[in-house]
Amino acid sequence: MARGRLTPEREAELYEAVLDLLREVGYDALTMDAVAARTRSSKATLYRQWGSKPELVAHALRNDKPVDIAAIDTGSLRGDLMELLARTDECQIEKDSALMRGLVHAVHDHPDLLQALRELLVEPEVSGLGEVLARAVRRGEVAADNPALRLVPHMVLGPFIVRPLIDARDVDRAFLTEYVDAVVLPALLVRPATP
Amino acid sequence: MARGRLTPEREAELYEAVLDLLREVGYDALTMDAVAARTRSSKATLYRQWGSKPELVAHALRNDKPVDIAAIDTGSLRGDLMELLARTDECQIEKDSALMRGLVHAVHDHPDLLQALRELLVEPEVSGLGEVLARAVRRGEVAADNPALRLVPHMVLGPFIVRPLIDARDVDRAFLTEYVDAVVLPALLVRPATP
Repeated sequence: MARGRLTPEREAELYEAVLDLLREVGYDALTMDAVAARTRSSKATLYRQWGSKPELVAHALRNDKPVDIAAIDTGSLRGDLMELLARTDECQIEKDSALMRGLVHAVHDHPDLLQALRELLVEPEVSGLGEVLARAVRRGEVAADNPALRLVPHMVLGPFIVRPLIDARDVDRAFLTEYVDAVVLPALLVRPATP
Repeated sequence: MARGRLTPEREAELYEAVLDLLREVGYDALTMDAVAARTRSSKATLYRQWGSKPELVAHALRNDKPVDIAAIDTGSLRGDLMELLARTDECQIEKDSALMRGLVHAVHDHPDLLQALRELLVEPEVSGLGEVLARAVRRGEVAADNPALRLVPHMVLGPFIVRPLIDARDVDRAFLTEYVDAVVLPALLVRPATP
């Protein structure tokens, strides 16, 4: 796909409109017609640039995640995870939770969306997190054969979706900080810093 | 609500039909009309017995969870958690994952469903799990002030929903066993048994 025709600004504007629509109406009701109308572009342009609705949605989500996890390197695993939380603002955490809840349902019925999400969003995040964890292993903070290493993405993503069910509240930075110190670091046998 | 009019067999049959419909069409498309038609009962009966759709769904889900967590008492925390997994058959794990994925989306749009689910399903499970954990604390297996204690429900529920996104596979008993040993027990500072 030639993606050279749109300026980065125009592309970002378009992605933002897709995410707004996704939050407003959900994945099933999001049509390429609605995206075209909202962004005053032609459907032909949308299909030429992104090929399909699942790919457009996955690219829009990817664009919304500006934090480059692998680039965070504070010298300790706890430092890296806290820096990741610090770089994600509170409003973004709320928006991410809402998107994830909507998408977890949609991917069940749309294997093409699941595949696009995995390739464009999940795998880059898992690999960025893998970089952070690999450095912790090289520093000797985490044993290379710790069985929790490959489960960190599951630990980290889960609360976003289940906290509303359990606590009737969305996740926020305070909760994620508590979760990292009480669950993620102990599972990796890393001693949490005293607060 | 007088629930005395239906035999337990009839009630169970009705709940099963509600869950089948929920898996087939999802929460939003599940109507009291469809439940009445599928179960050959009158809508008046359904409303008299359960009051509303969210309550009917929550009761049906509760009925589907026959494992009484608090009654499991093997003498060790790992034993209790493994016994819980052993009592839940593989097919049930799959069905639960599908239901949870559908409901996580629906509760976002339906506060009345969230409230019914929390009262009838989440709170009894959390309190059953709390009993198992309280016994582990009394036996001295887990420190009473371990900050992960209150996060066990979040740890345990999360993988059901996020594993398809991360591994493109549903959870199964093997994965849950690995997760308990690699994440839940270490977070509680309980040494996992050697396999």
